[in-house]
Amino acid sequence: MDALIPSGVVPCSIAGVWTKTLGAMPGKGGPILHMLRCDVPHFSIFGEIYFSVIEKGAVKAWKKHKVQAQNFACPSGRIRIVAYDARQASPTFNKLETFILGLPDHYQLLHIPPGICYGFAALDKAPALLANCADLPHSPEEAENIPADSSLVPYSWTGPEC
Amino acid sequence: MDALIPSGVVPCSIAGVWTKTLGAMPGKGGPILHMLRCDVPHFSIFGEIYFSVIEKGAVKAWKKHKVQAQNFACPSGRIRIVAYDARQASPTFNKLETFILGLPDHYQLLHIPPGICYGFAALDKAPALLANCADLPHSPEEAENIPADSSLVPYSWTGPEC
Repeated sequence: MDALIPSGVVPCSIAGVWTKTLGAMPGKGGPILHMLRCDVPHFSIFGEIYFSVIEKGAVKAWKKHKVQAQNFACPSGRIRIVAYDARQASPTFNKLETFILGLPDHYQLLHIPPGICYGFAALDKAPALLANCADLPHSPEEAENIPADSSLVPYSWTGPEC
Repeated sequence: MDALIPSGVVPCSIAGVWTKTLGAMPGKGGPILHMLRCDVPHFSIFGEIYFSVIEKGAVKAWKKHKVQAQNFACPSGRIRIVAYDARQASPTFNKLETFILGLPDHYQLLHIPPGICYGFAALDKAPALLANCADLPHSPEEAENIPADSSLVPYSWTGPEC
């Protein structure tokens, strides 16, 4: 289990999940938005960088990985991410936490280790863009899709919290 | 000089500059936009992933790096990038080429080696977002800023081509 927390990050209520406030540097013509660099303590290894576009009203849930860890940031729009600890051997098994990602107040990196169910939806301005700098390239063998309304995760995407 | 061209990419008129069409995979709720993964022939090393927001009408030019190579994609909006070969020892010294990056028709990776002057501006829908997965983390020691109207680069950002 990826429960080691690197220095300089904020541990969350789920073991191994953490956030790190990211720089948004004002500049002429538009800001520079930091995400991840190889010389920070919370960088492990580069697997893949890709983007998920989230249309207005859309929910993308749930995903779970056997091996891959996610490093999320939202450089356009705002996103709600819900994470649920589905690891039976985890000290925080069954714990659920929600995160907001996006400018202006929540421009941050969210790290999600393997074994966690996660899903996301766009807030207000849409489409939103989720960037993921994962520690392994995508492989369908290690990624699991779980229906958004599955009873395996105690969260309703249709409720007022969505 | 970074003039070696990896397999599977499209060499441009400037030595060492190339493009690679990227996947935009349709999906429920919005597409997945590929950018770069560690197991492709054109990946070298991970230095940093960051974003540059480009407001409507803004021009960000010129930049030149001594060591760092850029890997650009545009996952939101559309961008014009102009590249100029400022390497006196290059077989394509003084060559200039323009590129469009962005969906739906130009979702591609653009690789720019060190020694090339480059600048960019948002097209139509703005703000646009430029993602850069560079091979070194940013360092002010190796990055040079050149004014957008410098006579060193034979391109006018105020002309009809902008």
